[in-house]
Amino acid sequence: MAKTGTGEGALEARAPAVDAPVRVAVLGCGNVGGALVSILLGEGDAIAARSGVRLELVAVAVADPARPRPGVPADLITGDAKALVTDPGVDLVIELIGGIDPARSLVEEALASGKPVVTGNKELIAAHGAALTEAGARAGVDLLYEAAVAGAIPLLRPLRESLAGERIRRVMGIVNGTTNFILTTMSEDGLSYTQALGEAQRLGFAERDPSADVDGHDAAAKAAILAALAFRCDVVADDVPREGIASVNPVDVAFAGRLGYVVKLLAVAERTDDDGEDPEISVRVHPAMLPRTHPLAAVRGAYNAVFVEGDNAGELMLYGRGAGGRPTASAVLGDAIDAAYHLRTGSPARTVRRVRPRFRPVDDLRCAWYLNIDVVDRPGVLAAVARVFGDHDVSIRSMEQVGLGADARLIFLTHVAGEGDVQRTLGELRGLDVVKHIGGVLRVTGDEEHE
Amino acid sequence: MAKTGTGEGALEARAPAVDAPVRVAVLGCGNVGGALVSILLGEGDAIAARSGVRLELVAVAVADPARPRPGVPADLITGDAKALVTDPGVDLVIELIGGIDPARSLVEEALASGKPVVTGNKELIAAHGAALTEAGARAGVDLLYEAAVAGAIPLLRPLRESLAGERIRRVMGIVNGTTNFILTTMSEDGLSYTQALGEAQRLGFAERDPSADVDGHDAAAKAAILAALAFRCDVVADDVPREGIASVNPVDVAFAGRLGYVVKLLAVAERTDDDGEDPEISVRVHPAMLPRTHPLAAVRGAYNAVFVEGDNAGELMLYGRGAGGRPTASAVLGDAIDAAYHLRTGSPARTVRRVRPRFRPVDDLRCAWYLNIDVVDRPGVLAAVARVFGDHDVSIRSMEQVGLGADARLIFLTHVAGEGDVQRTLGELRGLDVVKHIGGVLRVTGDEEHE
Repeated sequence: MAKTGTGEGALEARAPAVDAPVRVAVLGCGNVGGALVSILLGEGDAIAARSGVRLELVAVAVADPARPRPGVPADLITGDAKALVTDPGVDLVIELIGGIDPARSLVEEALASGKPVVTGNKELIAAHGAALTEAGARAGVDLLYEAAVAGAIPLLRPLRESLAGERIRRVMGIVNGTTNFILTTMSEDGLSYTQALGEAQRLGFAERDPSADVDGHDAAAKAAILAALAFRCDVVADDVPREGIASVNPVDVAFAGRLGYVVKLLAVAERTDDDGEDPEISVRVHPAMLPRTHPLAAVRGAYNAVFVEGDNAGELMLYGRGAGGRPTASAVLGDAIDAAYHLRTGSPARTVRRVRPRFRPVDDLRCAWYLNIDVVDRPGVLAAVARVFGDHDVSIRSMEQVGLGADARLIFLTHVAGEGDVQRTLGELRGLDVVKHIGGVLRVTGDEEHE
Repeated sequence: MAKTGTGEGALEARAPAVDAPVRVAVLGCGNVGGALVSILLGEGDAIAARSGVRLELVAVAVADPARPRPGVPADLITGDAKALVTDPGVDLVIELIGGIDPARSLVEEALASGKPVVTGNKELIAAHGAALTEAGARAGVDLLYEAAVAGAIPLLRPLRESLAGERIRRVMGIVNGTTNFILTTMSEDGLSYTQALGEAQRLGFAERDPSADVDGHDAAAKAAILAALAFRCDVVADDVPREGIASVNPVDVAFAGRLGYVVKLLAVAERTDDDGEDPEISVRVHPAMLPRTHPLAAVRGAYNAVFVEGDNAGELMLYGRGAGGRPTASAVLGDAIDAAYHLRTGSPARTVRRVRPRFRPVDDLRCAWYLNIDVVDRPGVLAAVARVFGDHDVSIRSMEQVGLGADARLIFLTHVAGEGDVQRTLGELRGLDVVKHIGGVLRVTGDEEHE
């Protein structure tokens, strides 16, 4: 094994001359782009002193270059992003436009031109991460995207590097601040979903059209990225089954609280068989009940956190701001310093070959369940309902009956059961005369260690 | 600025041939060393597949080579650590002996021989980290020590790399599992310090001689390492004033609970003036009252967590197992893969020049305080006591009086006040006839954002 680089050159690389700038072009000047531009312009000297790398902002590409942008020198603004990504005067491209087009072709061209790319674009990476990583590897430059998942939280680098040798069993994250704000408000203030969504919109935590958040699209893209890194696999957003939070109702949130749980929207990526060349995994997004003592249960409001379970490391959690201009720009900046440093040393961040995984069929997933079922209140009904559970191998851990006028509400917690079995149980229950309504149906997770 | 390494060589470096092994010597085979040896021997193929780096264990140095070590092939065992660190058949040295001597000279010799070193030795790094980092830089090889602080938690790499551009304001950590177990038990089970320590010893969370933990020595070493990385300074354990937990009594833990706080032993490193060439910081270890809503307050038992506050990133928290053989070995393994990878590419992890900081005098530190004072219960006493506070510029935020037979107990929370002023207040109070006893005196922190 050849060991190289112990001569003068390597020493120079370790303490690079601060005054050799890396010329940076930023594509997009919205919330995150604007914050980054402001940081690069305002803190350039301090960043150089702290990091040993001087990032010189040479251009900012925007859709409408005529619009005045206070604080950004006019000569940095351009409408021609396409020219920048192949401009020999640009060393490093930071893509903060978002969406697939034109971001994808701009990133591809930058990489093909030998320029490292930093992006915060979760949609792009969740759809084309493997191909773009491959393109970066072919060009010998970095493609880094720490900001694409969980904003400011140092998450992807620890997964990729600190845990490079770890056999990760499961990654479970609260990765969408909007839905966590809504669920926290429903739980703590007793609001309905609609009321809590309105409150989130009023405070700027939710978009006017909230579907990307509340239907789980955003979380599914992040789940795909997390799964890809945790299991060194090629996973895309379309691989991720998802349930949003619009059907979570306050009755179930309140019952969860009484039973010692909180309801959270989780992005889950877990290994479902042994390590090997042909891994089987499950990646999904759904609301779930977590024990109140679980570290993720304490993640409130618009904060994000990701819980990682590894064979040797045990349980880890990384917590912080998942969105917002400056927090997200901070993650972009960390990547930009890395990319600039690697550009100078000629050794880009390491990547691993990704294989296409097998996905465990949803029917075969196993967890405990919470079920809220309204029935006619008369003798023999519980026996009839319980028999349906038993017929489908779903074992009941606890049941609580609540009067409801002429009817009764049955709140079940099951033992761990197969998803297919639970769905078939629900299907048969819906056909029973005595069953009036099936309300909340929630997975229960995280009980293994935190009971 | 020269950009190099976009040719064939760099591509090869990105997808290194798994079958070129990096030959590893492990010094020390105790709790962590033994776990690492077991992982390297048992999971070698899986680690190579996951990381692209094959670590081949070629030697394990122990104090008593005659002692049988089940699971470790006898031909790997040696008593001669000194020979290993200069052996041309060893590429990478992992030091898990602990303590200053002989670890220091072994690490120095390994680095001088051009071998990267991974260590989990907090004492060594807290005393000689700057000089050893410099020695590594001179040799063009890594000195990595993720496992030295907070075991399995990916912490030092995020501080060094992800947050390289961030202006960090404060790092505040629960970095000693023994004391956190004791304080959690006092709080949740109402035990005295002595009872909780006995419980910790019974369960193996505390040593028979617990002083390194309960007196704050262990936390002070970790605080020095955290401060050095967060502020790019040269800080050693002897720079860190510390108070242990032996004087925390259950009455104050209970009052803290009633007031909405928990008592934690904190390692704190904070910037006390503006960024610049000549930073002023404060680094210290002491018990403190944290609001129950603070993310660190939920860190129970033997777990560790570090809370980081940055200007742009906002609040981050990294949580996990702070000790234990396998969790700590997992952090060592992450570093070893990094070092092996860097050895092959010839580009070691980046380091920054460290300056010796100014330390803010303890007298000038400012925070809120909890004070528990027993006084004679008669008219005019509260006025006399309150006057002493006022004379020293210590403003009272709340006071609660509790009957205590013929005496009364006064529980004060102050507004933010200077430490010197509070100490002078306490000194004068001790001289008052009406003051019978001054009980708990605790700093209150983390209220800024979490009230």
